[in-house]
Amino acid sequence: MTTTTLSGLIAATYTPLNDGGDVNLSAIPQMVDYLLSQGVSGLYVCGSTGEGMSLTSDERRAVASAYVEATAKHIPVIVQVGHNSVHEACQLAEHAQAIGADVISATCPSYFKVADVAMLVETMAEVAGGAPDLPFYYYHIPALTGSAIDMGEFLLKGGERIPNLAGLKYTDTKLFEFQHCLELQDGRFDVVWGCDEMLLGALATGARAGIGSTYNIAAPLYRRIIEAFNQGDIERARHWQSRSIEMIRAIGRYPFHPAMKAILEMRGLSVGGCRLPQGRLSMAETKSLRADLEAIGFNELQAANLPLAE
Amino acid sequence: MTTTTLSGLIAATYTPLNDGGDVNLSAIPQMVDYLLSQGVSGLYVCGSTGEGMSLTSDERRAVASAYVEATAKHIPVIVQVGHNSVHEACQLAEHAQAIGADVISATCPSYFKVADVAMLVETMAEVAGGAPDLPFYYYHIPALTGSAIDMGEFLLKGGERIPNLAGLKYTDTKLFEFQHCLELQDGRFDVVWGCDEMLLGALATGARAGIGSTYNIAAPLYRRIIEAFNQGDIERARHWQSRSIEMIRAIGRYPFHPAMKAILEMRGLSVGGCRLPQGRLSMAETKSLRADLEAIGFNELQAANLPLAE
Amino acid sequence: MTTTTLSGLIAATYTPLNDGGDVNLSAIPQMVDYLLSQGVSGLYVCGSTGEGMSLTSDERRAVASAYVEATAKHIPVIVQVGHNSVHEACQLAEHAQAIGADVISATCPSYFKVADVAMLVETMAEVAGGAPDLPFYYYHIPALTGSAIDMGEFLLKGGERIPNLAGLKYTDTKLFEFQHCLELQDGRFDVVWGCDEMLLGALATGARAGIGSTYNIAAPLYRRIIEAFNQGDIERARHWQSRSIEMIRAIGRYPFHPAMKAILEMRGLSVGGCRLPQGRLSMAETKSLRADLEAIGFNELQAANLPLAE
Amino acid sequence: MTTTTLSGLIAATYTPLNDGGDVNLSAIPQMVDYLLSQGVSGLYVCGSTGEGMSLTSDERRAVASAYVEATAKHIPVIVQVGHNSVHEACQLAEHAQAIGADVISATCPSYFKVADVAMLVETMAEVAGGAPDLPFYYYHIPALTGSAIDMGEFLLKGGERIPNLAGLKYTDTKLFEFQHCLELQDGRFDVVWGCDEMLLGALATGARAGIGSTYNIAAPLYRRIIEAFNQGDIERARHWQSRSIEMIRAIGRYPFHPAMKAILEMRGLSVGGCRLPQGRLSMAETKSLRADLEAIGFNELQAANLPLAE
Repeated sequence: MTTTTLSGLIAATYTPLNDGGDVNLSAIPQMVDYLLSQGVSGLYVCGSTGEGMSLTSDERRAVASAYVEATAKHIPVIVQVGHNSVHEACQLAEHAQAIGADVISATCPSYFKVADVAMLVETMAEVAGGAPDLPFYYYHIPALTGSAIDMGEFLLKGGERIPNLAGLKYTDTKLFEFQHCLELQDGRFDVVWGCDEMLLGALATGARAGIGSTYNIAAPLYRRIIEAFNQGDIERARHWQSRSIEMIRAIGRYPFHPAMKAILEMRGLSVGGCRLPQGRLSMAETKSLRADLEAIGFNELQAANLPLAE
Repeated sequence: MTTTTLSGLIAATYTPLNDGGDVNLSAIPQMVDYLLSQGVSGLYVCGSTGEGMSLTSDERRAVASAYVEATAKHIPVIVQVGHNSVHEACQLAEHAQAIGADVISATCPSYFKVADVAMLVETMAEVAGGAPDLPFYYYHIPALTGSAIDMGEFLLKGGERIPNLAGLKYTDTKLFEFQHCLELQDGRFDVVWGCDEMLLGALATGARAGIGSTYNIAAPLYRRIIEAFNQGDIERARHWQSRSIEMIRAIGRYPFHPAMKAILEMRGLSVGGCRLPQGRLSMAETKSLRADLEAIGFNELQAANLPLAE
Repeated sequence: MTTTTLSGLIAATYTPLNDGGDVNLSAIPQMVDYLLSQGVSGLYVCGSTGEGMSLTSDERRAVASAYVEATAKHIPVIVQVGHNSVHEACQLAEHAQAIGADVISATCPSYFKVADVAMLVETMAEVAGGAPDLPFYYYHIPALTGSAIDMGEFLLKGGERIPNLAGLKYTDTKLFEFQHCLELQDGRFDVVWGCDEMLLGALATGARAGIGSTYNIAAPLYRRIIEAFNQGDIERARHWQSRSIEMIRAIGRYPFHPAMKAILEMRGLSVGGCRLPQGRLSMAETKSLRADLEAIGFNELQAANLPLAE
Repeated sequence: MTTTTLSGLIAATYTPLNDGGDVNLSAIPQMVDYLLSQGVSGLYVCGSTGEGMSLTSDERRAVASAYVEATAKHIPVIVQVGHNSVHEACQLAEHAQAIGADVISATCPSYFKVADVAMLVETMAEVAGGAPDLPFYYYHIPALTGSAIDMGEFLLKGGERIPNLAGLKYTDTKLFEFQHCLELQDGRFDVVWGCDEMLLGALATGARAGIGSTYNIAAPLYRRIIEAFNQGDIERARHWQSRSIEMIRAIGRYPFHPAMKAILEMRGLSVGGCRLPQGRLSMAETKSLRADLEAIGFNELQAANLPLAE
């Protein structure tokens, strides 16, 4: 198959919930419009940020469909189908292909840990086989799956066994493993960076795309990092990365994803709180978060019309 | 509600698969007959041993139904409903109640980790609420869920918030935490031991019941531990625990659950292999396992007609 | 060499410090008299409890000498010599032999982790070689060393390579590994239990001796567990183990070893606080600890004249 | 005090041992000449690379003295004094100051873990107090110490309490924490990067200096990364970082530090093997390592006269 290459800032989208905690599909078109207006170049649906694992499989299918439909091919939609049950993951992959998603991606199971490279290859071969016509990106996130397999070895072996293996969503901090994977076999694989607060280091190392949660709330800030980096202005890129770190530290004083959803709510997007075991910010926490963000000039950071050149 | 108390050896049952890897419901009645003949006093269905997390929700419902039906109320059936999606867990709990299961049990999610006692209580309240008429046992297995919450605190807070909280399936090696939980509030909670190779220590500490995988293949051995312990013959109890440890070390040289299923196959039970990411023993491994077991006199260990008094 | 066997309750002794944080050797004779009056059957000097790793090597030698001298052969003295520098460990072992210690024991290094059984055997061979005339017990405490090597394999290989390998101080909660080690090669090795709050389970499993910190403050309580167990009165043994668990939970609400030293101070023993990175309880914490202990009837638990039969 | 700033490539030096495993001080002048010829800008003595923790305190003092003397103030010498015993660390710090070392640095203890920021500050205040006239860099290496304290918080609190706190040797992969620390309080602290295989990402993020083990064997390669980065030629910098990653993966197939010492031996430097628990490559391993290095063109990578501009 031809090489797939993702580029730019891909938002790991949130799944809107209503007050009762049910999925609110009707909020998705507004969410997509908003993200397009922020300049994101792709959507990663039902990942960790989208609480894919906390949704029922029926809900995951409905959310994926709604995002694919609302996006209307303006930008690629990647559907994350990882599941403790590889059979369920496979069915989710089939569905994603059927509804016209552009790419599928999956974590390995998190309950039973994956013993070694060979087992990871077998397991992902089964999942990827559910959507044979779509490029497949393994979602490496050892902090949540508990499986810290060498990704270079996985790509080498997986490349022989999984016809549609396109690359990785790499969510760890080891830039050397990331670079090694990017360069393997003359750059055969597309490896997408997953740690927003280290985007600049990843760009220097060769990253072409990032998938992350904070691109939902501050894509303009990150576009400035990329722009400055591309212009060779490392100082300026560093300045904006610094603002991103400050923002993420501020949010990280609260339960992270509930706080992120509270920020989207502040912007007028009806996304609600998170499902258990994550929950929702209290009123007091929301108020305090708002104050913390104002203290670091957050409104500026997320302004879509922020002039790119200073 | 009245206090629930489980007792004796409860087999964490395997889910029979056919050669294609599909669930083989037709093998379940034979499995139940076999287990009853071994003297087990309950069945724990779709737990870790039963690969509950590796099955689709539809398969879990079908397996639970088949076990409940085949058991025909001879012994209690506990259905494990833990799921990364608390909504799916809830639906599985509803189903278990509807089909006449005796007890439900659930792990917490394994992908998103549970932050603290309060969050675990909220999460389990939602799951337990799916089967309000059945006793609920939280399944504590930190090595697989990644959430190592203090169980004493959980029972205290959970006891106030979850009407049908009956106790724990305690799968860790901290006998002091186990004993603390057993004795809390004058023994209000039923805490079942989950580490077969430490059963004797748990009996001394107060265990009344054990749930485990090796009760599938060697219940008579464990009944001898219990019998000897009850007769005050610690030496003899220790001897049989020693044989259990030797057996588990022999099996542990192979991928554990695939090896256990291979042993059941040797006994004429059609259980097949495991789903990914666990897999199945190769022919060579099976042959080697058989030799290893013969070397430690395994046939004797599992003989149902093993005379209890020496 | 002949088999060494330790028995009973061996106190992991504290190292008395003065207000300036220097070692207070003059308090050691009083400490030994007190421990003998409590009925302990051995002393484990400069272990984790004794902050061996937090002392200089000169201080370790001085503390070991003072304990050996004050004990005057009434009960065995075991000197713990583990050190990040295997050379320093070796020199400490030589010293322990020279001053007439009865046994040496050592952890592996904690900074560089031990890769496998073979490396652990080589490393401990070097340490044990420093005191070739004394029995050597490897001190297995993976929570502090970070090296979780299979102890059964270590004893098998170590038994061939280390002439004075006598056994283990086993400080983990895996009773099955403990039992396996105890029974290996017809009980060739002496394996001493190191988790006070699980003593009853260990006794059932075959323990003949325990080494622990809470035997410093409540040996009479633990003697009652042993007495009851030996008389076949498991109920009563369980009752006293339950009191021990309650006591340890109460102490565990504070930094553990500083709180233990505060308790010894309450009893009139001049032991001071702990070295960094552990520190010392504040006045307010000490007052609160005292109240917590009174609330659970602690004075009774530590009374040396507690009648053994109820 | 005035701000200290380290710059360039600082070699974490090896400690030469002879065949018997004793420290070989006479090899140190040759080692220093070699490192100066490679263009390193500082020496970090008795760190992890130098097996500081595996040496006796007397040996550490002798090694530090020999490096300070041989370096003769041509470049700064940093002496690492971390020890499980804070008192020993303090004495090592005093010695370093007395012999004319330029900087001291220390890990926290690795046996007892550090509970929180406040305890780390107290512990490091004691160590740094041993050499009050020298700048102090806390050596953050959570993979070996087991203490993963937030470094931003440590610098804030430590800056108030420790007069000579100059910064960090940061040996982790979290570029965002590194950048946060670099920028704290208008760049008050000097934070040195410790992960050679991610140097390029660190440079982009603001690193001014790196301390590492592979600067011993391939400083010219890393100087090319820095040169290219400074010239704005990211492609070329990436190319050389890629060669570094390939080299480190090749070495990492063997026990790392023993393999590094074998490479220095190949270059004619008498450094011997490592102390336990690390050991020494076998003849066969050394031969195999040599072949692996030739296969990736290693000789070119370490050539001191490698032309910097292509």
